[in-house]
Amino acid sequence: MFRNFLPKEVNFFELFEKQVGFALEAAVYFKELVSKGAIDEESLKNMHEIEHKADDVAHDIIEHLNKTFITPFDREDIFALAKQLDDIADMIYTITSRSRVYKLTGVNKNLVEFASVIEDSVRAVTCAVKGLRSMKNLKSINEACVEINRLENVGDAMRDKVFMELFETEKDPIMVIKLKEIYQDAETVLDICEDVTHVVGAILVKQA
Amino acid sequence: MFRNFLPKEVNFFELFEKQVGFALEAAVYFKELVSKGAIDEESLKNMHEIEHKADDVAHDIIEHLNKTFITPFDREDIFALAKQLDDIADMIYTITSRSRVYKLTGVNKNLVEFASVIEDSVRAVTCAVKGLRSMKNLKSINEACVEINRLENVGDAMRDKVFMELFETEKDPIMVIKLKEIYQDAETVLDICEDVTHVVGAILVKQA
Amino acid sequence: MFRNFLPKEVNFFELFEKQVGFALEAAVYFKELVSKGAIDEESLKNMHEIEHKADDVAHDIIEHLNKTFITPFDREDIFALAKQLDDIADMIYTITSRSRVYKLTGVNKNLVEFASVIEDSVRAVTCAVKGLRSMKNLKSINEACVEINRLENVGDAMRDKVFMELFETEKDPIMVIKLKEIYQDAETVLDICEDVTHVVGAILVKQA
Repeated sequence: MFRNFLPKEVNFFELFEKQVGFALEAAVYFKELVSKGAIDEESLKNMHEIEHKADDVAHDIIEHLNKTFITPFDREDIFALAKQLDDIADMIYTITSRSRVYKLTGVNKNLVEFASVIEDSVRAVTCAVKGLRSMKNLKSINEACVEINRLENVGDAMRDKVFMELFETEKDPIMVIKLKEIYQDAETVLDICEDVTHVVGAILVKQA
Repeated sequence: MFRNFLPKEVNFFELFEKQVGFALEAAVYFKELVSKGAIDEESLKNMHEIEHKADDVAHDIIEHLNKTFITPFDREDIFALAKQLDDIADMIYTITSRSRVYKLTGVNKNLVEFASVIEDSVRAVTCAVKGLRSMKNLKSINEACVEINRLENVGDAMRDKVFMELFETEKDPIMVIKLKEIYQDAETVLDICEDVTHVVGAILVKQA
Repeated sequence: MFRNFLPKEVNFFELFEKQVGFALEAAVYFKELVSKGAIDEESLKNMHEIEHKADDVAHDIIEHLNKTFITPFDREDIFALAKQLDDIADMIYTITSRSRVYKLTGVNKNLVEFASVIEDSVRAVTCAVKGLRSMKNLKSINEACVEINRLENVGDAMRDKVFMELFETEKDPIMVIKLKEIYQDAETVLDICEDVTHVVGAILVKQA
């Protein structure tokens, strides 16, 4: 159990669990918003608050990292994990904000599908990050990582399908510009989740 | 004073000041160019020279870093700072070059506004980087970082406003493609400046 | 000869040579495909397999890196090199896949030109990476890096020229969106090759 090495005053595990909690909150809220098909000023403000809270925890982690000599795993891995969990909430906020800037209204079934895969993936990320507390969770961490990778492939195929459809059916180039960006960003959330599995993999291998 | 730890033959502070000087030169020149609203072959060449000089200093820093055992602050922070200061000049050159490739002419008041915020931000970056020579400058470094973060938020709001306006008023999709990219890149310069504050923060925390 | 420091059971040089081999295979196949001007389901599948093999070697390298205490050069340099060689094959696959998604058909002479420069650059990358086995190859490594940098500049100029032409002559905005992305990605492959020279430079300086 590498937990014993932790100085009492800083618990990186707690901070990471808090951070991934906000990433999941953003993903769940995003799916809710796109399923309703209307992003008003208030829901954008709510999403911004979630993103802000995730950002605050990231700053806490980096600050503790810079001040702490002994860390539960490699500094570079802690830094990368904090950055990636931050990027998840960030990118979800960006898509929400951009949807409003572009005045996209109505339910976009492709985006609902993306939001659903994103929620599943961030849920698996949550499981993997929470598992890091103990090597006893090795099996469930591995299963979560396999699932995240599977969902990234699902997202890739979805983006290709959706792009093909968009370029075939949408005759308004301005709408193509808007939706291409939104779909691309949605797929990027799944890429970031996959990046998390690389860091988690590095942490596990070093502990083994 | 961590300055004493520096080997005499390599002065990273001098190199960073030189590098941030070129970033500022690029920002000032950029504002001048967009205010006149005409980027001719010669002004593009001038900007390229500034970018090239910034690039040369970055290479000097990396080379010294690879050869030097004792550095004034963590190697990874030196590397990140050199990369970011390089990215500032680089991105300003890219916008200048792209404006010419896209044959954008006339004064674009949005771009002038962006250029003005960029100049302010790079000026604050200059102040933060020069402050690193001594922990006595802690207060002014912190103030500069707060200002850079404020300007990044200003830039975010500007981009959203400008995007909304662009997609509402511009009927030519080709022009939308061109201006969307230029505005996005302008906002990216402010993002890079914000990244500098993270590295500066890491350096300060470790020195404390 | 730093080769002696290598533990017998892991040969990073062999892995890197294998990885750069797949990057080159992707580049050569890409040129073949764009020269014929038709990317069918089977050729896309072939390219995906090459990309997948490159990816597998990258995972091997990272895993060995995490398990190995003594490495032939700095861990961060090994990590960066594995990532960059992976990115080369990845980006070439992305362009191939996107060309098919966008249903681009016929020979695009600009893309053939890009593919030719990409092949030359990846060939020089291969030479630089293979040279790392021994400091006796210093001269040929340096020559390869100079060539990669030259080709990146060639690519920059090509992209500017091709963009200018595209925005002047192509009247269909949807086609502008498609081709702009494809050309930009093609130029990005050359940027990644240039990034390799930075890591190779860092490795050489530290060995000197």
